Amino acid sequence: MKKMTVVLGVVAAFGISAVASDTLIDKAKQAGLKPIPEKRSELYKLIDNPKNPITDEKVELGKKLYFDPRLSKSGLISCNTCHNLATGGVDGVDAATGHKWTANPHHLNSPTVYNAVFFDKQFWDGRSPDLEDQAQGPIQATPEMAATKEHVEQVVRSIPEYMKAFKHAYNDPKFVPTFKDVADVIAVFERTLVTPSRYDEYLNGCEKALTAEEKEGLKIFIDKGCASCHNGVALGGTMQPFPVAGKYKYANVGDFKGDKNGMVKTPTLRNILETRPYYHNGAVWDIEEAIKIMGETQLGVKISDAEAKKIKAFFGALTGKKPYVRYPMLPASTEKTPKPDLD
Amino acid sequence: MKKMTVVLGVVAAFGISAVASDTLIDKAKQAGLKPIPEKRSELYKLIDNPKNPITDEKVELGKKLYFDPRLSKSGLISCNTCHNLATGGVDGVDAATGHKWTANPHHLNSPTVYNAVFFDKQFWDGRSPDLEDQAQGPIQATPEMAATKEHVEQVVRSIPEYMKAFKHAYNDPKFVPTFKDVADVIAVFERTLVTPSRYDEYLNGCEKALTAEEKEGLKIFIDKGCASCHNGVALGGTMQPFPVAGKYKYANVGDFKGDKNGMVKTPTLRNILETRPYYHNGAVWDIEEAIKIMGETQLGVKISDAEAKKIKAFFGALTGKKPYVRYPMLPASTEKTPKPDLD
Repeated sequence: MKKMTVVLGVVAAFGISAVASDTLIDKAKQAGLKPIPEKRSELYKLIDNPKNPITDEKVELGKKLYFDPRLSKSGLISCNTCHNLATGGVDGVDAATGHKWTANPHHLNSPTVYNAVFFDKQFWDGRSPDLEDQAQGPIQATPEMAATKEHVEQVVRSIPEYMKAFKHAYNDPKFVPTFKDVADVIAVFERTLVTPSRYDEYLNGCEKALTAEEKEGLKIFIDKGCASCHNGVALGGTMQPFPVAGKYKYANVGDFKGDKNGMVKTPTLRNILETRPYYHNGAVWDIEEAIKIMGETQLGVKISDAEAKKIKAFFGALTGKKPYVRYPMLPASTEKTPKPDLD
Repeated sequence: MKKMTVVLGVVAAFGISAVASDTLIDKAKQAGLKPIPEKRSELYKLIDNPKNPITDEKVELGKKLYFDPRLSKSGLISCNTCHNLATGGVDGVDAATGHKWTANPHHLNSPTVYNAVFFDKQFWDGRSPDLEDQAQGPIQATPEMAATKEHVEQVVRSIPEYMKAFKHAYNDPKFVPTFKDVADVIAVFERTLVTPSRYDEYLNGCEKALTAEEKEGLKIFIDKGCASCHNGVALGGTMQPFPVAGKYKYANVGDFKGDKNGMVKTPTLRNILETRPYYHNGAVWDIEEAIKIMGETQLGVKISDAEAKKIKAFFGALTGKKPYVRYPMLPASTEKTPKPDLD
């Protein structure tokens, strides 16, 4: 018997992480957590939109337009201004700030564009079904890019290289791009902005991809119930009940109260350590504070400082590898290109 | 004799461009026009600063800081905002617009960063001797990035990856970057932003690099005296007399009148077709109009529409090949990183 205990002790010392982790992967999957597929074909199925299929030509053109500030009324703001690919796909300020330095009137924070393709709905109130639809919003919103559809069409149609690229992308020598086409190719580019991480390697079966502390954090994350909202591939992206105002410390920052049913889109936790400040209103700068408040207001559970620290450690494993982006050199304006209007 | 004439006629028909161009290359060089050297070692000598030598480590770090909006007070404006590498190294608006959507108080236009390394002086009033000194200006200017030196130092020192990169770049494990060091590495990156063009191939001896119309444009450019200010490698970048106010159509746009001696830095003509609007005050959007006005106010000569068109054609040959820029993924902020301040 004694020998047996010793043997078990050795197993416990050297093997427990493997045994516990096997269970933990299952547990994570049972909790609805899903990895970014390793296989390109599987990933492609997840990110593609059959109504707007991904092609190399559209990705390249969409990237240019994503970075092109001339789509905005002022000529100074591009999609990348608020969803900056260099800084986790966000702008790092609490309330999105656009045309004429105007903050979002509801004090809404810019959500990251990375992995947004995995969301069920777009925008904090989930009013948009997909990226194609979403991309049309900020370009036209007065406090964001403040452009009209006509402005965008004029810009694109005034630049021969863009016209050529659209014709090529749609294989139609008579193609004349509309505002919707511009949003469509931008959405195609955005569909490629996925960031696989060590967390995915782990869920895909690589035990060693997470450290012991990160695994502990994941376990607490599941046990506390965080995965009841932060699940799926994005660890977020579905509509969930908006925090009850009375209980929520920062409820008074901005006037957003969720959609008409009191629901709010759960933000993704991928790259969360790169996308502060947190919440729909950017009211919280410290991730551990954010974790604790969410436990209290959304789950009715207490998360201790030590537990929040471990969950944060787990979040570190969600920092993903960003796609390689060659900074685009944009085609020159012509005399027909609308002049910027900063007013 | 007749045979001789025929032979000469053939030479004239098939060889005249070669003969005329040989002369034109000499003429261009006599007028002070210089190509970007083909040889890497020669180019390196031109762009390097012995007091701040170019190294791969500094270029890479400088590129990150060039694109990092956190250096600004608001967290929203980077060097690349006004000197956008995607759009000819400029912002495309008449007056540079920065912090709180403030236009440059003198209505000064953002000059391109491409090939700025070849300028004798920096800023429109030439107050800065080099890029290292220049880079310190806009970061601190209230209507631009509006940051203090302390803010910049706090940002950089709060991000471990930046600290590591500085230590590595300066080969000193105890290196603590100052504001000046930040400007220095940004300047090193900027020193690499040169754009060789067909014009350089031509001046370097490749006759076929320019079309007949472009050569005609170059000849008119020299004959009219444009090269008396727009010369050197940059076709600009030296201090020249500011246009006499009375004669200059757009003199009332902004209140800039040159430096204390009435001098203004001649802008580069490289990539000029990508960097509208034109002049220190961005008052002119049409390059042919800009050419004609300059002839009138600076040279006292009339440039016809047909001549301006040919000079414009020549300018097309100055559109250069941009360096390959991988869009940087910036290291995440930490709890010590100053929060953005949009006020």
